[in-house]
Amino acid sequence: MNFLEERIIKDGVVKSSNVLKVDSFLNHQMDIALIEEIAKEFKRRFADKTVTKVMTIEASGIGIAAFVAKEFGVPLVFAKKSKSINIDGDVFVAEVESFTHRNKNQVIVSKKFLHEGEHILIIDDFMANGCAMQGLISIVESAGATVEGCGIVIEKGFQIGGRVIRNLGYHVESLAIVDAMDAETGSVTFREQ
Amino acid sequence: MNFLEERIIKDGVVKSSNVLKVDSFLNHQMDIALIEEIAKEFKRRFADKTVTKVMTIEASGIGIAAFVAKEFGVPLVFAKKSKSINIDGDVFVAEVESFTHRNKNQVIVSKKFLHEGEHILIIDDFMANGCAMQGLISIVESAGATVEGCGIVIEKGFQIGGRVIRNLGYHVESLAIVDAMDAETGSVTFREQ
Repeated sequence: MNFLEERIIKDGVVKSSNVLKVDSFLNHQMDIALIEEIAKEFKRRFADKTVTKVMTIEASGIGIAAFVAKEFGVPLVFAKKSKSINIDGDVFVAEVESFTHRNKNQVIVSKKFLHEGEHILIIDDFMANGCAMQGLISIVESAGATVEGCGIVIEKGFQIGGRVIRNLGYHVESLAIVDAMDAETGSVTFREQ
Repeated sequence: MNFLEERIIKDGVVKSSNVLKVDSFLNHQMDIALIEEIAKEFKRRFADKTVTKVMTIEASGIGIAAFVAKEFGVPLVFAKKSKSINIDGDVFVAEVESFTHRNKNQVIVSKKFLHEGEHILIIDDFMANGCAMQGLISIVESAGATVEGCGIVIEKGFQIGGRVIRNLGYHVESLAIVDAMDAETGSVTFREQ
């Protein structure tokens, strides 16, 4: 087990076979020392990539992605969620479905901050169905920029997102892949990587 | 002028007498070196305070507050915005009015991450009417914790928030206070501090 898997075992709470709460250290309260370790691990895993910008989506990925951007010495751009129909022409837009909230959000990035020829590392805290990641990838591609990789802190391996994104040929690195959870025993099974 | 005021003059865009766009370095694209400098400045200004936790509200304050938490060597807790009426008893709740979006949001913090006797530094990127800050203060107070200070990156000095919070006796430090803006000339007038 790596440092993150150990922390999930120690402080994560299995609420159901599908819900893992990591809000004590990752996405409500943040353990900054852990976040820095996560950022350094992403730097190590994507060390051979040219990265000109880190990108994420608001809200809970921002803190993690900011420390990853620091490691690479590049700016962070976070995509914004917008419910408004009227979006002017100066933004890239993707429609993202949320299974948790059962609605659709438009995700936008200003054209000022994403250009042709840029090399983007996408970072997010969770991946399940991969809808948010697909939206971010589509925004990067539509700008004529290159997705250098997708770094996920916790991937739900029993949902389809990781397989879809990898099948599309993208380099995905998940620091922990949860293949199964048991709410009765509280146990978490990680994929061997 | 300090480093932030200089950056606002260089890269900020005055859209109207009330709207200052700083999305190229602060709240859409983030210049991480600048964010680190901001964090160190807050550490300097609140150096004499006992701080056990940094708190902010999602989304755009998270990246800044995470680096401030790093400076103090403490965890960050970010309050979540929630539209749901049904919130269980395990959270502190405040109602926050948004003048930008003309709606009300419930802002919540889990009782697991905010305790009596804690010393909280609240950080946010912007303050205008101060509604978000008042919500965060009310949450901290209702937990029986102490607000050690409120650190704001950019305060709109011509709106009421800063005066209200200072009148209530809280220690507010704003790295830049904008007293006036002129959309025609693009000029920004900062308060002497």
